[in-house]
Amino acid sequence: MKDGDPEPLVLREDHGAVARLILNSAANYNALSTAMIDALSDALDEVAGDSGVRALVIAARGKAFCAGHDLREIQGARNDADHGRAAYERLFSRCAALMQKLPALPQPVIAEVQGIATAAGCQLVASCDMAVAAEGVRFGVNGVNIGLFCSTPMVALTRAIPPRAAFELLVTGEFVDAARARELGLVNRVTAPDTLQAETMALAQTVAAKLPAAVRLGKRAFHAQAGMALAEAYAATGEVICENLLRPDTAEGIQAFLEKRPPAWD
Amino acid sequence: MKDGDPEPLVLREDHGAVARLILNSAANYNALSTAMIDALSDALDEVAGDSGVRALVIAARGKAFCAGHDLREIQGARNDADHGRAAYERLFSRCAALMQKLPALPQPVIAEVQGIATAAGCQLVASCDMAVAAEGVRFGVNGVNIGLFCSTPMVALTRAIPPRAAFELLVTGEFVDAARARELGLVNRVTAPDTLQAETMALAQTVAAKLPAAVRLGKRAFHAQAGMALAEAYAATGEVICENLLRPDTAEGIQAFLEKRPPAWD
Amino acid sequence: MKDGDPEPLVLREDHGAVARLILNSAANYNALSTAMIDALSDALDEVAGDSGVRALVIAARGKAFCAGHDLREIQGARNDADHGRAAYERLFSRCAALMQKLPALPQPVIAEVQGIATAAGCQLVASCDMAVAAEGVRFGVNGVNIGLFCSTPMVALTRAIPPRAAFELLVTGEFVDAARARELGLVNRVTAPDTLQAETMALAQTVAAKLPAAVRLGKRAFHAQAGMALAEAYAATGEVICENLLRPDTAEGIQAFLEKRPPAWD
Repeated sequence: MKDGDPEPLVLREDHGAVARLILNSAANYNALSTAMIDALSDALDEVAGDSGVRALVIAARGKAFCAGHDLREIQGARNDADHGRAAYERLFSRCAALMQKLPALPQPVIAEVQGIATAAGCQLVASCDMAVAAEGVRFGVNGVNIGLFCSTPMVALTRAIPPRAAFELLVTGEFVDAARARELGLVNRVTAPDTLQAETMALAQTVAAKLPAAVRLGKRAFHAQAGMALAEAYAATGEVICENLLRPDTAEGIQAFLEKRPPAWD
Repeated sequence: MKDGDPEPLVLREDHGAVARLILNSAANYNALSTAMIDALSDALDEVAGDSGVRALVIAARGKAFCAGHDLREIQGARNDADHGRAAYERLFSRCAALMQKLPALPQPVIAEVQGIATAAGCQLVASCDMAVAAEGVRFGVNGVNIGLFCSTPMVALTRAIPPRAAFELLVTGEFVDAARARELGLVNRVTAPDTLQAETMALAQTVAAKLPAAVRLGKRAFHAQAGMALAEAYAATGEVICENLLRPDTAEGIQAFLEKRPPAWD
Repeated sequence: MKDGDPEPLVLREDHGAVARLILNSAANYNALSTAMIDALSDALDEVAGDSGVRALVIAARGKAFCAGHDLREIQGARNDADHGRAAYERLFSRCAALMQKLPALPQPVIAEVQGIATAAGCQLVASCDMAVAAEGVRFGVNGVNIGLFCSTPMVALTRAIPPRAAFELLVTGEFVDAARARELGLVNRVTAPDTLQAETMALAQTVAAKLPAAVRLGKRAFHAQAGMALAEAYAATGEVICENLLRPDTAEGIQAFLEKRPPAWD
């Protein structure tokens, strides 16, 4: 945050063990400018290192959750001696690093989506582990409409929804609403706009109430085993579940269940 | 089966070319204890070697299809000198071997699911090739609720349903009903509880009425090609379909179709 | 096309920048005979090399979109000295090459499906990038009913729809209608039979109105990144989106958007 900036690009609130990051650049629809990418990356690094945080919500202020990259910034780089090549490589390298921080974060991440989530904004939603969307939200990977195919958003999108629906969105630039996004598997829950924050926080608090060590090793294993062959995935997760079982707090959780009492975890 | 045991842990019925294995430990919700894992593994080995069986149903007695691992057995192993490590490694190694027997079995396997299917019980359903569920059945990978993330059930589950729905089930420990399980692709058919066995057997008999050799090579190819790149998958399945075509009974099947008569297969 | 043939096996119409190939062998339900495979392959090669074509529709004449391979031709080859082995290897090698031409084609390909699409006909639909189907269309991979498991159609089908639904279709030989095919993700849009061509052409024209270079590099990247690990997919698509951004016509597309005017692309 430079001197004189009235507001940081990313705000953070903590609600118990749930951190909530808020994209705070409503004037440009929370565009993923270089500055926004850096601010959000820094905020994620902080959350990653904060053992008190058990679940993360990514929300946004204004009419849009996020409308993708900052097109004015992109056009500005065309004046560089190399017509923008180095700037673009840097931009997409940083953006890819940001998107990969989300599955790599120790805590589950939930997108809280209002307004629109388009292009890299849709990628941000698809890169979170889960998403809650307000009715009326529109999702799109619509860069093709201005001649810029959403090649990088596609990476997250095609790992979240069925391939032929993804292809259609990418080549038509058309939008889908929250209900269709849930059918496709991009969104976990749809709610009225005025209950969006409460519903998302309720989901986050549900996750935060679980044994944090179990959630952390589980999330890591979830993403690690995703591309493995069956035998390899069982070998990897077999080690994880044994490690999980050998924890004293897991012993307590199981014992409490058998004795029909709440676990003494905190 | 030890002397004095009143009942074996797994029963087998044969209905024509369909074998039906029944988990028979209702008192502990058909928990996948070491003994149950071994009994079911043995029963699968027998079915695998039985050329008269053309389709397999896995059903269960009691209020639950299967409620996962045997938590009392798990807690008991904590008294071992190594606090259970060796016992847990053995348990999850055997369980993973059991689960991988199902796609490797020559015959198609259908889960017939009543009551609840949770944790490793949900994994068992997801490891069968297909599933029929009674209305009202609840599915969950809810180990997280007692501090034990369902890391191994996740392997089968994430290969059956969309990733973000799987993540939600794993970190919230919440249940889904049979209708939602069908939307997610875990369950093939949903039926009233009192027609569950009949519907499942009807599906099994449909499969058993096909040319067994074609079903066997097809099932093997189905699982073999799943993780391959497109060209590799076509090379592999091209060999399979040629082998299939060169069979005399397939020649008869095609000829019968062209002559609008039933094939003389049996 | 041999002398005296009244009609070619594949017709081509051009509607602006959309090419429409029409399977033209209604008498045998547009069976994928060797001759039809060769004719369709040749037509695809022509389209691939035609820079004026921005989207391709594959349609068919008659009661069926395509009913799979030519069973009479297959039975005929049994009289060969090797009982058909060489002929079958050649047939499935050519067919696999045809199917792989579709994702490899520079232009998006849309199946326009009427009547039935079964066995290799269903594979043809699943191998196109998208599909529009008339209400009442029936899809199946029903070779198992005549003793010939649809092992090669399975390759395309299991990459388009959820695995357990695919397994059920393959081992039961049962059909699904267009609405269910859309739920499963095989079909993008369902329409009344008398608007099938208009709806499919509208989708194709939507795609054809985008910047062709962006669509081409996007489609190539879509299929290229599909099987990659996340980091590899981001590295690959990062290069693609930079290449896309550095195009003068993309610069114009973005500038036009910022200036709220249509791009001067043509």
